[in-house]
Amino acid sequence: MMNILQDFKKGPLDFYRKKASFDWKKLKVFLETEEVIQYQNELYTELQKHADYNQTDSIQTLPFDEQRRIACRQSFIYKSIDLLSISSLIQNLKIPPTATRVMMQVSPSSTIKFSVTDSLFVNVIRSLGTTRHDHFINDTEEGNIIGCYCLTEIAHGSNVKGMQTTATYDKEKRAFILNCKDFQAAKCWAGGLGQMATHAIVYAQLVTENINHGLHCFVVPVRDPKTLLAYPGIIVGDMGEKIGLNGIDNGFLLFNNYEIPRENLLNKLGDVTDDGQYITSFKDPNKRHGAALGSLSLGRVAITGICESYGSKAITIAVRYAGVRKQFGPDDDNEVALLEYQTHQYRLLPYLAAVYVVRIFSTRLSELQYQFSIASVLGNDTANLPDWGMELHAVSSASKPIAGWTMKEAIQESREACGGHGYLKAAGIGDIRNDHDANMTYEGENHILIQQTSNWLLKMWPLVVKRQKISTPMKSADFLTNGMDILLNSKFPAKNIEEICRPESILVIYQWLICHLMQKSSNKLDQELHKSKTQFWAKNDSQVFNAKNLSIAFIQHFMLQTMLEKIAEAQEVELKNVLVKIFALYGLFSLEKYHLSSLYQGGFAVGPLAATLIQEAILKICSELKNDAVALVDVIAPPDFVLNSVLGASDGEVYKHLQAAMFRSPYAMARPSWWQDITNWKENVLKSKL
Amino acid sequence: MMNILQDFKKGPLDFYRKKASFDWKKLKVFLETEEVIQYQNELYTELQKHADYNQTDSIQTLPFDEQRRIACRQSFIYKSIDLLSISSLIQNLKIPPTATRVMMQVSPSSTIKFSVTDSLFVNVIRSLGTTRHDHFINDTEEGNIIGCYCLTEIAHGSNVKGMQTTATYDKEKRAFILNCKDFQAAKCWAGGLGQMATHAIVYAQLVTENINHGLHCFVVPVRDPKTLLAYPGIIVGDMGEKIGLNGIDNGFLLFNNYEIPRENLLNKLGDVTDDGQYITSFKDPNKRHGAALGSLSLGRVAITGICESYGSKAITIAVRYAGVRKQFGPDDDNEVALLEYQTHQYRLLPYLAAVYVVRIFSTRLSELQYQFSIASVLGNDTANLPDWGMELHAVSSASKPIAGWTMKEAIQESREACGGHGYLKAAGIGDIRNDHDANMTYEGENHILIQQTSNWLLKMWPLVVKRQKISTPMKSADFLTNGMDILLNSKFPAKNIEEICRPESILVIYQWLICHLMQKSSNKLDQELHKSKTQFWAKNDSQVFNAKNLSIAFIQHFMLQTMLEKIAEAQEVELKNVLVKIFALYGLFSLEKYHLSSLYQGGFAVGPLAATLIQEAILKICSELKNDAVALVDVIAPPDFVLNSVLGASDGEVYKHLQAAMFRSPYAMARPSWWQDITNWKENVLKSKL
Repeated sequence: MMNILQDFKKGPLDFYRKKASFDWKKLKVFLETEEVIQYQNELYTELQKHADYNQTDSIQTLPFDEQRRIACRQSFIYKSIDLLSISSLIQNLKIPPTATRVMMQVSPSSTIKFSVTDSLFVNVIRSLGTTRHDHFINDTEEGNIIGCYCLTEIAHGSNVKGMQTTATYDKEKRAFILNCKDFQAAKCWAGGLGQMATHAIVYAQLVTENINHGLHCFVVPVRDPKTLLAYPGIIVGDMGEKIGLNGIDNGFLLFNNYEIPRENLLNKLGDVTDDGQYITSFKDPNKRHGAALGSLSLGRVAITGICESYGSKAITIAVRYAGVRKQFGPDDDNEVALLEYQTHQYRLLPYLAAVYVVRIFSTRLSELQYQFSIASVLGNDTANLPDWGMELHAVSSASKPIAGWTMKEAIQESREACGGHGYLKAAGIGDIRNDHDANMTYEGENHILIQQTSNWLLKMWPLVVKRQKISTPMKSADFLTNGMDILLNSKFPAKNIEEICRPESILVIYQWLICHLMQKSSNKLDQELHKSKTQFWAKNDSQVFNAKNLSIAFIQHFMLQTMLEKIAEAQEVELKNVLVKIFALYGLFSLEKYHLSSLYQGGFAVGPLAATLIQEAILKICSELKNDAVALVDVIAPPDFVLNSVLGASDGEVYKHLQAAMFRSPYAMARPSWWQDITNWKENVLKSKL
Repeated sequence: MMNILQDFKKGPLDFYRKKASFDWKKLKVFLETEEVIQYQNELYTELQKHADYNQTDSIQTLPFDEQRRIACRQSFIYKSIDLLSISSLIQNLKIPPTATRVMMQVSPSSTIKFSVTDSLFVNVIRSLGTTRHDHFINDTEEGNIIGCYCLTEIAHGSNVKGMQTTATYDKEKRAFILNCKDFQAAKCWAGGLGQMATHAIVYAQLVTENINHGLHCFVVPVRDPKTLLAYPGIIVGDMGEKIGLNGIDNGFLLFNNYEIPRENLLNKLGDVTDDGQYITSFKDPNKRHGAALGSLSLGRVAITGICESYGSKAITIAVRYAGVRKQFGPDDDNEVALLEYQTHQYRLLPYLAAVYVVRIFSTRLSELQYQFSIASVLGNDTANLPDWGMELHAVSSASKPIAGWTMKEAIQESREACGGHGYLKAAGIGDIRNDHDANMTYEGENHILIQQTSNWLLKMWPLVVKRQKISTPMKSADFLTNGMDILLNSKFPAKNIEEICRPESILVIYQWLICHLMQKSSNKLDQELHKSKTQFWAKNDSQVFNAKNLSIAFIQHFMLQTMLEKIAEAQEVELKNVLVKIFALYGLFSLEKYHLSSLYQGGFAVGPLAATLIQEAILKICSELKNDAVALVDVIAPPDFVLNSVLGASDGEVYKHLQAAMFRSPYAMARPSWWQDITNWKENVLKSKL
C-alpha cells in the first residue's frame, strides 16, 4: 500500500497532518481500493507526460484561440490513451467515474469535448441506429470523422418536444430535407460543433406527407472531413466566448433545405420506407420519445460526479490555506490558523463533508448506471429494467442539481475563505467556479430537472397511503413502505448531542421529512386542482416550499443511506469514526440549511431543543474535525500539477508560491508599452481618441 | 418629466410593460428626483462620447494588457469630467452615490482605480497630514503625480495591527528607513500600484530608538513621475491576473532600507521631531490607531451601493429575459413566458425586491456618511460625532457584507435563471459575477467585518436589560429601548396572509428577532466565558447561529426601516402599493431564508401557522409582482450601451441580439488556422509535441 501513495513534503501543514485521528493512506485505500489508486496514478503519469496537459507554467489565461487549440489537441490525445479505452474502463466499474474525475480535474474542456464528440456520438448511434449505421461508428473510432450531438435549439432547451428543426421526407429524392424556419430553430450549444465536427446527430421533427411524427435522430454530415469546410445549405459556426469551458467549441447549426440520405435516419425506434411510409413499433409516440432521450440519464449521472470533481479541488485549496494562514490571536504575538476559528470551520468543513458524501454516492450511482446499461445491452433482468430506468432517471434528476448546487456553494465558500488572495487567478478557484457554472444549466436546467424526482415520488403517494409495499430496484424509496407509520408515530429522535449525531437518528429525521413533504406536496397539488387549475398549472404552483423541498430531502437521504452502506464496510475503528462524523456533519448541516423550519412546521419538532441540538452538534463536529481536515483533503486532493494553486499546494508553502507566481508574471515588473499614456495623459489620453 | 425619460422601443416586452400596475417614469422620479435623473443622463451622455467607455462592440474578453490600457485611460478621463468634480458632486448629497453607480456600471475597473489613485490618496493626506503635505495634494490634482494606498500585506489583511513593514527613524539622516523583513511583509493589493503609481500612502510600524509606536502613514515615492521607472531600494510590481477587475493594476511593494524624508510622515495624529522624539496627542495608542483607520468606513458605505450596482444589472437581464423567453405550456402550441412560473418568480423577484431595498438604503446611508464627513470637517455637532462615527462603523460593517452576499446570490440566480444562454459571455452576467466577487473580501473580509456590528450591539445589551433609553444618531437601534418588553410581550403578529404582509408586522418580527438574538448571543458568550475561555475565544466561539445572525437581522431591519421612511413620502397610491409589496417580499423572503427556525427556537412561533403564512405570503406577492417585474427593472436599468447584454436589452429582442452577437464573433465561421490539427490529428497531434 505504501508504494502507491507517497508521503507529502514536510512543511507548514505538518502541524495538522500530525494531529489527524486516522491514517490518510488507509482511508484512501478503503474508499478507492488499491487497484483504482494504481489506475489513477498511471493515468496521471500518462497525462503529465504530454506537454498539452501540463499547464502549470501558465499563470495567465491563454488567448481564446489558444485555449481552443490546446483543448482540441488534448481531446485527440485522450483517444490514444489505452487506459481510457472501453476495455480498460469496464474491467472494474469503479474505474469509469475515477477516470472521469481525473480527466475533469486535469482539463475540463477537453474532457467534455472528448466525451461528446467521441463517446456520446457513438453511443447514440449504437442505441438508436441499426447495422446500416455501423460505418459511422467505425469511421469515428478510426478517427476519420468527428461527431457531435445536436438537441438544443436557440429557442428550446428544456422543452425538448418543442424543437422546431424539421426533417421532411422527399419521396422523389429518397432523402430527408432539413430546415430551420428561422434562427430560433437553429441547433446550438453542441460541443465540438463550433469548429471541428464533421458529422452531427441532429434531433428533428420527422415529417412525411405533412404528418409530424415527432422528434427523431439523424446523422448529418456538416463539414468535409478533408478540408473542414462547411457543406453548402447549412450555416454552422461557433457560439463565441462563454463564462468558462472556453476550450469547448459549442456550435450552432442552421439548415436551409439541406438534403441527407434516407438511410441517415437512426431507425431502431421508427423508420421511413423508401416510398415514404412511417413505421414504428411504438403505439404511444410519448414512449418512443422517452426511449429516444434515454441516453440523457447517463449524462446526469456523470455530472453528479463531475460536480464533486470541481468541489474537491476548491475545498482542498481552501482547507490547506486555512491550515497555514494565520490571522489574529489571543495576543499580538500568537496568531492563530484560520482553521481554529468557529466561523471558518463552519464555512468549510460541512462542504468538505459534502464532497465526501457526493463522491461516495456518485461512484456508487455510476456503478449502478453501468450495471443497468450492461443489463440493457445483454438483455438481462429485463422485467426489472423499466423500473430501474425510471429510478435512475428520478435519482439522477435530483442528484445532478443537488450535487451542482452544493458544490457551487462549496466552491464559492472556498473562494471567499481564502480572503483577498483567493481572488488571484493563481489561487485557482475562479476558473473552477466558471467551469462548474455550466453544470447548473446544461443537461437539463436544475430547477426543471428536479421536478422529475418529485413527480416520480408523488406517483407513489397513493401506495404509501394504502400502506402497500414499496420496493424499487435501487432501494432509494423502500422506507416509504412504512410511510404512514413514520408520519403517525415517528418522533424527534434525540434528547442530547450524542443522540442527534447518530446516523440512525439523522436518517429517521430525513425519512419523516420525506413522508411529510410528500403529504404536504400532494395536499398542495389537490388544493390547486380544487381551484380549478389545470394539472399543468396546479403542478407548477406546488413546487416552491413543497415538491422542490421533497426532491431535495429525498436525494440527501439517499446519499446518506448510500454512505452508511459504505461505512458499514469499514473495519478500522479510526476510519469508521471519522466517516461517521462526516456523515453526521453533512446530514445535520443540510437539515439546518434546508429543512429546519419544516421540522417545526410539520410538528416533528416542538420547542427550542431540536434546533439547538442540531446547531450545537454541527459546531461540535466541526471543532472535532478541524484536526482531521487537512488529512481529509489529502485523501481527495489531486496531485499538485493538477490542482495548480499557489494557495493549495501539498507542501503548504503558500507565501513562497505566491511570491514565485507574482514575480513570474510577464507584466510583474515591466513598464507597460503604453507608459506614456500615464506620464503624459493630458496629451495622450484627453486630446486623442483611442 | 417626460423629457428626461424616454419610452422604450416597442417589442416583445410590451406584453408585460402594459400590464404594470404603475407608471415606471413616476416611480423613477419619486425614487431619484428629476434633478438626479438629469444628472445621470448627462453623465451617461458624457461617458458615451468617449470611445474608451463605449465597449459594446467587444464581445470577446480583451487581452490582459489591453484591459489595463483602457482602464488606465478611462481613469484619467474621469479626472477631466466636470460632472465628477467635488463641487458638482456635493451640491446634492444624492448625487455622489448615483455618480458612483453610473461609473461602476459603465466600467468597474477604472472607477475603482480612479477612486483609489485619486480620491482616497488625497483624502488620507487631507485627514492625516498637515500643511507640509499640501504639495502632494496639489500635484495629484494637477495630475503630476499618481497616488495609491498601501495597507494590506501579503501575510496580514484583516488583522491590521499585525502589519510588519517598519519605518525606522534615523536621526543622522533625518529620514525614515523603510523595511520589509521578508515577502510576507510586502504591501500588496494596492490598486494603481502595479503599473502606474508614482507615490504610495504606506502604513508602517513607526520605530524610534527601538520603540515601536504602532502603525503610521507615510507618503512614499515609488516611481519617477517622468519615466515611470521604480526607484532603487524597492521592488514594486503587478500582482497578475485576477478573477475579475483585471483593468486594475493591483500591486505589491517590498522595501529594503528605503529612505524617505522625515516630512513624509503624515503627522496630524503623531509625529517625530528632527532629533527623534515621538510625540502624539493621543494617550491611548488604540485610539490613535482607530483614528488612522477612520477612512475605511467611507469605503464600506460606498461598497454597499456598489454591490447593488452589480445586482441591478444582473436582475435586469434575467427579468427581461424571463419576460421574453417562453418554454413549456399548458398545451404544445401555447408556450408560456418564464415569468409565469412560480419557481421562476421565486428565483428572481425576491432579489429584485432586494435590489430596491439596498438601493434606497445605500443612497440614504451615503447621505448620512457625507453629512457626517461634512460635520467632522466643519466641527459641527461635535458632541454627537463619536457616537455617529461608531454607528456608521457598525452599520456599514454589516451593510457591506449583507449587500455583498445578497447581490452575489442575486447575480448567481440571474445567471442560472437565464438557462444555457446565460452562460454566454454576451449575456453579460459572468463578468458581473467575477467583478462583484472582489466585494466579498476587500475592504474587510465579510465574516470578520460583520463581527463589528454584533460587538456594538452586544455592548448595549446591559442597557436593554436595565430598560434604559437607547438613542443613537442614526436611530438604527432606538427600538431597543423597549427590548425587554418586546421579548416578554411581543407575539407573532399575524393570523392571515393579509396581516403578515403589513410592514408593521414584518418590523415587529425583526425587532423580536434582534432582541432574542442579542439575548441568545449574550448568554452564549457568558457560557463560553464560564468554561474559562478567554474573551478572545469566547467571542469567537459564539459567532455561528448567534452573533452573526444578530448582525444580519439587525441590518435587514434597519434597511427595511429606512425603506419604510421612503415609502411614507410617496403620494400616489400606485407607487405606495408596489413599494409596500417590495418591502414585504424582501422582508419575508429574508425571514424565511435566514431566520424562520429562530422564530420557533425562541418560542415566538408555535405550530405550522407562522411558517405557512410567511411562505404563502412570499408566493402570493411574487405572483402579484410578476406583471410589475419588467416595469420595475425599467426603473433601475442602466441604458443598453451600459448593460451590454444580448439577453437584457430594453427592446426585448433576445433572439435577434443573440444571432447578431454570434455571427459577429471573429471565430464564428472562420476555419481555425490550426485546422490541420483536426483533419490530420494522428500526425499533427499524436506524433508531435506542442
